[in-house]
Amino acid sequence: MKHPKIPLAQTVVQLCKAKNIQHIVLSPGSRNAPLTIGFTHDPFFKCYSIVDERCAAFFALGIAQQIQKPVAVVCTSGSALLNYYPAIAEAFYSNIPVVVLSADRPKYLIGIGDGQTINQENIYKNHILYSANLKEDLAEDNALQKEKLPILKNTDKKSLNYTVLQEKIQEYNEEEINKAINISVLQKGPVHINIPFNEPLYDIVDEPSVKPKAFSLEKKENIIEDLSSYISLWNSSKRKLVLVGVNQPNTVEQKYLDFLAQDNSVLVLTETTSNIHHERFIPGIDKLIAALNTQELNQLKPDILLTFGGLVVSKKIKKFLRDCNIKAHWHIGEHNANDTFFALQKVFSAPINTFFKAFSPLTNKVESNYNALWLEAFNSRRENHEKYIKNIPFSDFKAFDIILKAVPNHSQLQVGNSSAIRYMQLFDLKNDINVFCNRGTSGIDGSTSTAIGAALASKQQTTFITGDLSFFYDSNALWNNYIPNNFRIIVVNNGGGGIFRILPGHKNTTNFDTFFETKHKLTSKQLCNMYGINYAKATNESELSIALDDFYSETRQPKLLEVFTPSTKNDDILLNYFKAIK
Amino acid sequence: MKHPKIPLAQTVVQLCKAKNIQHIVLSPGSRNAPLTIGFTHDPFFKCYSIVDERCAAFFALGIAQQIQKPVAVVCTSGSALLNYYPAIAEAFYSNIPVVVLSADRPKYLIGIGDGQTINQENIYKNHILYSANLKEDLAEDNALQKEKLPILKNTDKKSLNYTVLQEKIQEYNEEEINKAINISVLQKGPVHINIPFNEPLYDIVDEPSVKPKAFSLEKKENIIEDLSSYISLWNSSKRKLVLVGVNQPNTVEQKYLDFLAQDNSVLVLTETTSNIHHERFIPGIDKLIAALNTQELNQLKPDILLTFGGLVVSKKIKKFLRDCNIKAHWHIGEHNANDTFFALQKVFSAPINTFFKAFSPLTNKVESNYNALWLEAFNSRRENHEKYIKNIPFSDFKAFDIILKAVPNHSQLQVGNSSAIRYMQLFDLKNDINVFCNRGTSGIDGSTSTAIGAALASKQQTTFITGDLSFFYDSNALWNNYIPNNFRIIVVNNGGGGIFRILPGHKNTTNFDTFFETKHKLTSKQLCNMYGINYAKATNESELSIALDDFYSETRQPKLLEVFTPSTKNDDILLNYFKAIK
Repeated sequence: MKHPKIPLAQTVVQLCKAKNIQHIVLSPGSRNAPLTIGFTHDPFFKCYSIVDERCAAFFALGIAQQIQKPVAVVCTSGSALLNYYPAIAEAFYSNIPVVVLSADRPKYLIGIGDGQTINQENIYKNHILYSANLKEDLAEDNALQKEKLPILKNTDKKSLNYTVLQEKIQEYNEEEINKAINISVLQKGPVHINIPFNEPLYDIVDEPSVKPKAFSLEKKENIIEDLSSYISLWNSSKRKLVLVGVNQPNTVEQKYLDFLAQDNSVLVLTETTSNIHHERFIPGIDKLIAALNTQELNQLKPDILLTFGGLVVSKKIKKFLRDCNIKAHWHIGEHNANDTFFALQKVFSAPINTFFKAFSPLTNKVESNYNALWLEAFNSRRENHEKYIKNIPFSDFKAFDIILKAVPNHSQLQVGNSSAIRYMQLFDLKNDINVFCNRGTSGIDGSTSTAIGAALASKQQTTFITGDLSFFYDSNALWNNYIPNNFRIIVVNNGGGGIFRILPGHKNTTNFDTFFETKHKLTSKQLCNMYGINYAKATNESELSIALDDFYSETRQPKLLEVFTPSTKNDDILLNYFKAIK
Repeated sequence: MKHPKIPLAQTVVQLCKAKNIQHIVLSPGSRNAPLTIGFTHDPFFKCYSIVDERCAAFFALGIAQQIQKPVAVVCTSGSALLNYYPAIAEAFYSNIPVVVLSADRPKYLIGIGDGQTINQENIYKNHILYSANLKEDLAEDNALQKEKLPILKNTDKKSLNYTVLQEKIQEYNEEEINKAINISVLQKGPVHINIPFNEPLYDIVDEPSVKPKAFSLEKKENIIEDLSSYISLWNSSKRKLVLVGVNQPNTVEQKYLDFLAQDNSVLVLTETTSNIHHERFIPGIDKLIAALNTQELNQLKPDILLTFGGLVVSKKIKKFLRDCNIKAHWHIGEHNANDTFFALQKVFSAPINTFFKAFSPLTNKVESNYNALWLEAFNSRRENHEKYIKNIPFSDFKAFDIILKAVPNHSQLQVGNSSAIRYMQLFDLKNDINVFCNRGTSGIDGSTSTAIGAALASKQQTTFITGDLSFFYDSNALWNNYIPNNFRIIVVNNGGGGIFRILPGHKNTTNFDTFFETKHKLTSKQLCNMYGINYAKATNESELSIALDDFYSETRQPKLLEVFTPSTKNDDILLNYFKAIK
């Protein structure tokens, strides 16, 4: 097998293998050639080539979102790694393990006007779990480098000869690489390993010259502390609200869902991105609370708020829980406990099942009408929802209703930000559909790339639903050879950022159209032609139904369905919905 | 006139006006609505709406590159401003003034799981001249905010009432905004102003409630110090090499160019991006030095190296000057003196003309054959160049020859990275053509957006020449309504990153094709259809000549000409050129 000649490149590649990082997303470049050589010659790795680094990183994020193990992205020096940043921030807030391997120039060539050279060290400082800044291998024949040798910690280069110094560098690099990858695995999130290479970059050898050590992970035990004080509050509270944010599917064991569902004093609110389901849970927060008056909101106010999972989509529930000054907010989870409601009192830092295993046996069921009252209210909303839908004209709202009914069982939905994911919350989804959305930063960037990476990794039938601005933003997502033939894209094209129309004031002025709604007349058709994607469109209800009939049949190309909705009606239909639903 | 109700938004908008920042590139969003309202309602500002923030920032960079005054980019909170980063790094290394105005959530809503929220403060730390982190206005009725009030420096909030505290905040913000913009103007580069807004965001008032003060710039005098010791070395040196990097057109007065040209001991090497011309300068560095043997290189070795302008494209001159251990490298310029050759001895921190005004009267002409020897050598290269061109088949090299001859007089060339700008260096360009390229980070990202911004601002006939990977990378550049009808794009499409083929080894393997050359079969045609751009293509010499005949005629759409070259020949033709030229 061929290896890059540079020991540092061998070290990185071997440690990635030892740590079982299998998926490697490479962007072309010269400085990263030693890594590209190393990864692509070893059949252990699944390598992907994606030119636009912004897309490459989101694609990697999509894979990692599915496999829940680190995926590496590899780029050349310079602005390349800045293009990773949107996906890195998303990974940071969504607890998705992504390992950035950025090639760099050796230190003596930085800041002196060389091409494709920026200050790469600690570049993601605000949004990274760890930054490993590796040292370049010493090139024995490089006088310039020696003059400007990087000083190692606690090492006086003058007193060391070449071999000893190189050994110190190797040791330092191995430790840093191990540390970075371990942190990515354990704490679930992005890490950055910056890797300086001396030229020549393209040399190849048959046997590696180094055998780096992989240090094993030290995972701390999840010890559930004494729960008695919490149990006593739980067992005496008649209104316990459980709010579930973003979750991987199958995160919570059924018996714990039942435990929550069977207690009349517990009300569980979920979002589509929660990926948990129970007939006694409420899967439509905005539908439930949008039209509540002060008195009703007061009845909903919990004694205890228990949360788990990632970020919450619903703005309405955030406002309600902030306004009502809850007394006790407990959060379960190992990562990122957010004080979203300014009332966080306790974090149970453990996996959810571990927590419930310890907690549930200690609880009593408490008699209360809390659950029944709101379930009943919600069921009445459901009926009104159906009535409302029947009478509205073709629109974003109507389109989502038709589309979501057509999404196949046992499949996966990837959803764009933010109108698409917000609309989704208003509909009951089939329980066996898994839903994903980049809610870490909630950006409109990178949704398509993420969805493609996820579709590839999950092998599930995947449908990506997005608005037009988000889709065009990430148009380069289609520029790769890895889109599965059964991948399906649905673009709800309302000719601009229609969601802005529901905001107060300013509507129907040139200013509004240009700078808020960003009106346009683009279609996705040409992009589909360009990238070999089967294209269909629908402009009304019957066209949409017909298009969906055939949408999931087997094809030799991925398919995109563009649904054109009238931009001027969507805002009123959405706003009236919240009035009509109660 | 309408104004945003939020005093901080009024302050930002008014200070931008006071500082004469006229061009405002807005990306749609909600958090930045107060700024969008402010800028778009005042006819003083020229506002642009561009959805993809990566393109928006490069577009702004292109405008600023031409007007050499700050241009503002305005975005919403969250990952939006991360997409600015590639352009910000380019601005940083190319000394182009860009002012980032990023809307943010107020501090008490950051890090608590709110949507579209990241750690925005100091986000561009490694590549920014100044980061102003403004404080949100106090919302009198916001109890939550008061509880989590940002502490002002040297200010104890407990001892201050609401009005006094708000005054302190206003004062602090005004100072920070002034400081940031002044730095961008004086030091020429990017600055970041992060602007937190409390809701409501969309309220409008008829009269502004604040009148912020603009502080004037304090530009330090350029004092040229005692030059005598440098003069004596200059006057006694027989080989003075002047190497000119990136310059704005018309940077150096003709009399100083003549001063350099008329001294036989001075040899001036320029690049196309130098934008200076003289019949006794050498506008083709690689052409001159590529085939030199050790003895000849020794004859070229200067006693003094004098540099001015920005980064240098030629790798060959960098290698030569590093290898030959020059004794004295002097640099003229106010910004970024790079020790590119590890020999920087003196920086004359002054505008180039100011320096020569003081320096040139003190000099003597020195008898030497330095200039004549190399001018003669270069002229022989020129002849060989012409002979070589005549005999090569259609290829990247041939295409550049034909294209560059067709570029109109008195026009502007914008060039992509990096094969396009490297090929350009090998040809003699008409003297009245101005050349620009993003050589700060030398990225393949954002070249098209930059070119469009520049074309818009300069109003000159602008031709953008780029390779295929760079063009597809920035495909969203075409997604805006500001492309002038006389804008011309030429995509030299060799089906991948053909430049990688000149690198050692690995050619013609699947690995190489996929991960280095990144082979593809894409064309630009569909993008042109999508964005309303006139499309033409050429696949051989005669088609190219015919296409160019009509290329610059007046049209009602911008035009793109795609030149397909055979990917397998380009590398040999380029490598053989350097042998044939001597």
